[in-house]
Amino acid sequence: MTTPNSDIIEILLVEDNPNDLALTQRALKKARLANHLHVCRDGAEALDFLFGEGVYAGRRLDQPPRVVLLDIKLPKVDGIEVLRRIKANPLTRTIPVVMLTSSKEQKDVVESYHLGVNSYIVKPVNFEGFASAVEQLGMYWLLVNQSPNRES
Amino acid sequence: MTTPNSDIIEILLVEDNPNDLALTQRALKKARLANHLHVCRDGAEALDFLFGEGVYAGRRLDQPPRVVLLDIKLPKVDGIEVLRRIKANPLTRTIPVVMLTSSKEQKDVVESYHLGVNSYIVKPVNFEGFASAVEQLGMYWLLVNQSPNRES
Repeated sequence: MTTPNSDIIEILLVEDNPNDLALTQRALKKARLANHLHVCRDGAEALDFLFGEGVYAGRRLDQPPRVVLLDIKLPKVDGIEVLRRIKANPLTRTIPVVMLTSSKEQKDVVESYHLGVNSYIVKPVNFEGFASAVEQLGMYWLLVNQSPNRES
Repeated sequence: MTTPNSDIIEILLVEDNPNDLALTQRALKKARLANHLHVCRDGAEALDFLFGEGVYAGRRLDQPPRVVLLDIKLPKVDGIEVLRRIKANPLTRTIPVVMLTSSKEQKDVVESYHLGVNSYIVKPVNFEGFASAVEQLGMYWLLVNQSPNRES
């Protein structure tokens, strides 16, 4: 038997909208997928978390999240730029990143795929649709998809 | 009402193992996701399909598959090389590619993510697990994920 390591974050959720944040957390909790969730409220904090800088200096980086859920419209550094930096760095490039955004703009979709996003989800506008999408994506990325271990 | 275009392939399945092929097709059919499925049995045929070459010369390329399910151990050109060529070409880079493979080797997982794979799934060894994984991945990539339209 192994003791779960509370340092291990399975889902990094980057979201500044309080309603969307509450809804996402509730849907993940309902699907029992919220145990190892960490929330960053802007793009700069997300980068600090992933690269162990700023307030996250010294954080262990050898167990990256199994998935990053990334909004596009974010304060300080937007989601497209966060995605660009994650995928440009060999240390973070293998972390699965899912855009979870209200933007249906084809420009954002295409740019995200060109930058190497793993998946792109448009937030459904109604409550039930949103909760169902979050549940399905949580199940898929935590239970079906195989994330790489950090190579070291 | 629009008439479905029979030219549009939603899932490209690249698989040479007859048992895995039959199982995948059955699971997709059960989930009603097999209507626009095309099968290639080796990596060279998959590349010809995606780039409109060889026996697929002249095929319309402006409606790429919404997802490619790619085995790794394939005749002629292996799945890792097929992935590399899809992600190296701006015309095909945005097509979601899911490795669906029996390889659990960390080397294959990490190399796939470095090359830009969208998701990596290890085939469950038992029948029910395999069928369930295929159903979940089909639902996720056709119903939850937003694929980009072909930019032209």
